[in-house]
Amino acid sequence: MTSLFSSPFSSAVHSHDFGLRSLLDPRFKLWRIESGVARSLTWLEDGTIITLGIWGAGDIVGQALSCVDPYQVECLTKVTATPLSSEQWQPDAALLLSHLQQMEQLAVIRSHRKVDAMMIKLLNWLAKRFGREVEAGNLIDLKLTHQDIADVLGTTRVTVTRILGQFEEQGVIERSLRRIVLRESEAWHYEI
Amino acid sequence: MTSLFSSPFSSAVHSHDFGLRSLLDPRFKLWRIESGVARSLTWLEDGTIITLGIWGAGDIVGQALSCVDPYQVECLTKVTATPLSSEQWQPDAALLLSHLQQMEQLAVIRSHRKVDAMMIKLLNWLAKRFGREVEAGNLIDLKLTHQDIADVLGTTRVTVTRILGQFEEQGVIERSLRRIVLRESEAWHYEI
Repeated sequence: MTSLFSSPFSSAVHSHDFGLRSLLDPRFKLWRIESGVARSLTWLEDGTIITLGIWGAGDIVGQALSCVDPYQVECLTKVTATPLSSEQWQPDAALLLSHLQQMEQLAVIRSHRKVDAMMIKLLNWLAKRFGREVEAGNLIDLKLTHQDIADVLGTTRVTVTRILGQFEEQGVIERSLRRIVLRESEAWHYEI
Repeated sequence: MTSLFSSPFSSAVHSHDFGLRSLLDPRFKLWRIESGVARSLTWLEDGTIITLGIWGAGDIVGQALSCVDPYQVECLTKVTATPLSSEQWQPDAALLLSHLQQMEQLAVIRSHRKVDAMMIKLLNWLAKRFGREVEAGNLIDLKLTHQDIADVLGTTRVTVTRILGQFEEQGVIERSLRRIVLRESEAWHYEI
């Protein structure tokens, strides 16, 4: 999948490290994420950010997969990623299918009419994809801001703050800093 | 892409004709649409239908591409489609990419905060994909009900009815029966 190529960077393909909130260099149209978590995003004329997907190790992201403009990939954690030359990359059907299915899952999550239902589905999804089991439940350690969650769900930061507070009171989650522990519950076992 | 296969139908691959509102036989996990327009859909616990995508000639649809359950493909017009044996079908990266990008476009359309903005984007998208030029503008002849449009946008039938009425008054669209003519306008030229 990787090979020598010349532009825009010279010499052999190698992975790059990105800090929190940095953007994957858009001169490369395809990146393979080696570690960490990033989101693909666009924005509307009024500046509203839309999170198109949330991606982790093994996922392929980049403008070459998308037809929306603007398009960016922003790191939600520290990320290591390898640029792929789109001419030389053989699109991998299994990877594209997985990409497609993840977008579909987010579409279903966003379709819930009530924001609290949407949010519990999103937390379950994040826990399954990126979570780590801890004693209290499943740790989502993505340093997501309330605005980030709002950008995924198409709601407002204020609403996210309110509902996370409600979930904490109800014992559905525990929080410290930007880490969320989703406690074992029926909701957690619910399959989307 | 097509080949002989035995089950669940016998003998050679051949296309099937489907009437309005009929479902593509779910015993086949993959179908290629030859003509007509269909939607892939799922529904939430409360019965809310979610339209996952709207597909036309050349598109591949079916449970094999999806990871949501329930999953159905319903014909919005008369449809001719050919079942593909998922074991024998070589997933075609270009087709998967196109499928993915169409889902992405719908996700962006749904992300507009105002339903009238969402709706004009959807009409533009439908006109570009499935429309036919007529004297008055671009004819969308999909026999979509107001509920169908609501299922795509995650809004209510009542809201769709109100906004279509508003668009008609403003001269943005013309309607007769379930056909919509989107008149030439700036909105029509707007790229999503």
